[in-house]
Amino acid sequence: MTNAPLRLALLQMEALAGDIAANLDRIAAAAEMAAAAGAACLLAPELALTGYGAGAAIRDLAEPADGAQVAGLSAIAARTGVAVVCGFAEAAGGAVYNSAAAVLADGSRHVYRKLHLYGDYEKRLFRPGEAAPAVFPLGGLKAGLLICYDVEFPEMVRHLAASDADLILVPTALPASEHAGFIARSIIPVRAFENQVFVAYANHAGRDAAFAYAGLSGIAAPDGSDLARAPASGPHLLVADIDPAAFGDARAANPYLIDRRMRFISGPNQT
Amino acid sequence: MTNAPLRLALLQMEALAGDIAANLDRIAAAAEMAAAAGAACLLAPELALTGYGAGAAIRDLAEPADGAQVAGLSAIAARTGVAVVCGFAEAAGGAVYNSAAAVLADGSRHVYRKLHLYGDYEKRLFRPGEAAPAVFPLGGLKAGLLICYDVEFPEMVRHLAASDADLILVPTALPASEHAGFIARSIIPVRAFENQVFVAYANHAGRDAAFAYAGLSGIAAPDGSDLARAPASGPHLLVADIDPAAFGDARAANPYLIDRRMRFISGPNQT
Repeated sequence: MTNAPLRLALLQMEALAGDIAANLDRIAAAAEMAAAAGAACLLAPELALTGYGAGAAIRDLAEPADGAQVAGLSAIAARTGVAVVCGFAEAAGGAVYNSAAAVLADGSRHVYRKLHLYGDYEKRLFRPGEAAPAVFPLGGLKAGLLICYDVEFPEMVRHLAASDADLILVPTALPASEHAGFIARSIIPVRAFENQVFVAYANHAGRDAAFAYAGLSGIAAPDGSDLARAPASGPHLLVADIDPAAFGDARAANPYLIDRRMRFISGPNQT
Repeated sequence: MTNAPLRLALLQMEALAGDIAANLDRIAAAAEMAAAAGAACLLAPELALTGYGAGAAIRDLAEPADGAQVAGLSAIAARTGVAVVCGFAEAAGGAVYNSAAAVLADGSRHVYRKLHLYGDYEKRLFRPGEAAPAVFPLGGLKAGLLICYDVEFPEMVRHLAASDADLILVPTALPASEHAGFIARSIIPVRAFENQVFVAYANHAGRDAAFAYAGLSGIAAPDGSDLARAPASGPHLLVADIDPAAFGDARAANPYLIDRRMRFISGPNQT
């Protein structure tokens, strides 16, 4: 990897359930701050436009990827010069998906539909995606999208790393629970270390009618360290430089993608 | 899972490089203590019989799995009633493997050859294994073996968990390094959590002519907590009860093996 560094901003957000305009305003304000900090990309949480806990209203608010909501994100990216990655409810073919859009300042767009829905709440609202996430260029890096529960499956990050991603961008909505701290502080850094990639995990904070959120958004480096970490509560804008060249020693000491010998364990892995 | 609990003992060991008899004595003493503590199984480190850092002498000391060294472990198991899992250098077909043997009190034996050799030191001494680890009954549980670097690959633990293992037994030789604490304290608990299994990781302590070891042996539970954890230095005998029924809540909240949708990401995973 000889990829150029990229300054990443991450918004830990208190979304207003059901209020698309208010949430677009908050993302726009964060993108302005990100631009002022020299960032090239802003990552926002899962379903940040509708709010995660808006329940059945999410289905009513869902729009196609070429609808007004994603166009609103694209306008922010065009105005600020900051690429925006953000969760939204996507209407397509009569179904609603829990999706994330990456809208780049050059007008290009990448959409991913969450493969792994968590629990009854999501399974009632959404249809699961049916396609693996793809890697796309972001500045001088290669990036891939996952959403929340997806990143807890090691196969998902491995898939993107094996597809040459440097940076995994993860909008999430992690409620406060006895396991939330472990997921945010242990699983996310391990995903980065075991693939020698960067993982950015943007959570909600605060509460809505359905959930209280765990915050603890973070950006993990290939050596398992935190480049940035938000506290459990409150909105926060994190900024960190994603620089693969700075972690050459970790990559040399932990060459998992070179050393793995998957042909010997491909059987039960294939369910 | 309705499997009965099993009391597991783990020996963090200061092995004597090149002295099989001394190391067998240390394992025998630990097995006596384990029996007195009511344990049904004792886990010892990688290459515990030869010492990990014995260099080229390891190849000279290697023996077949039906040789005197593993017979010595079997005699300990028969005398104490404690199953012994221990790393050894295995001679077979003109090659030497970095292997682990599980010898049960009933005289049965399971051997696994390390699939993932780490670094030049191991690659010079050993031939890598060519078979996935198998699951075997251990008391009322199902167990599987991995060795050291193997467990850092999420696919390896996933393979055993998908084969119905409750408990992953990992002889290791983790040298002190800037990443050792992360591997022992973050990767091992995440392997347990992401598969909802128990992972026991038995390391060396102290030093030999080639390496200083990181200690920090541990037994991680399905909720990511430490059931037991040794300090960085000194020999220690850890004892913990492996009881899948005690972690039903964690399993219900984190049903990764039920929810994963691997058919969508089977492409680049298959190298």
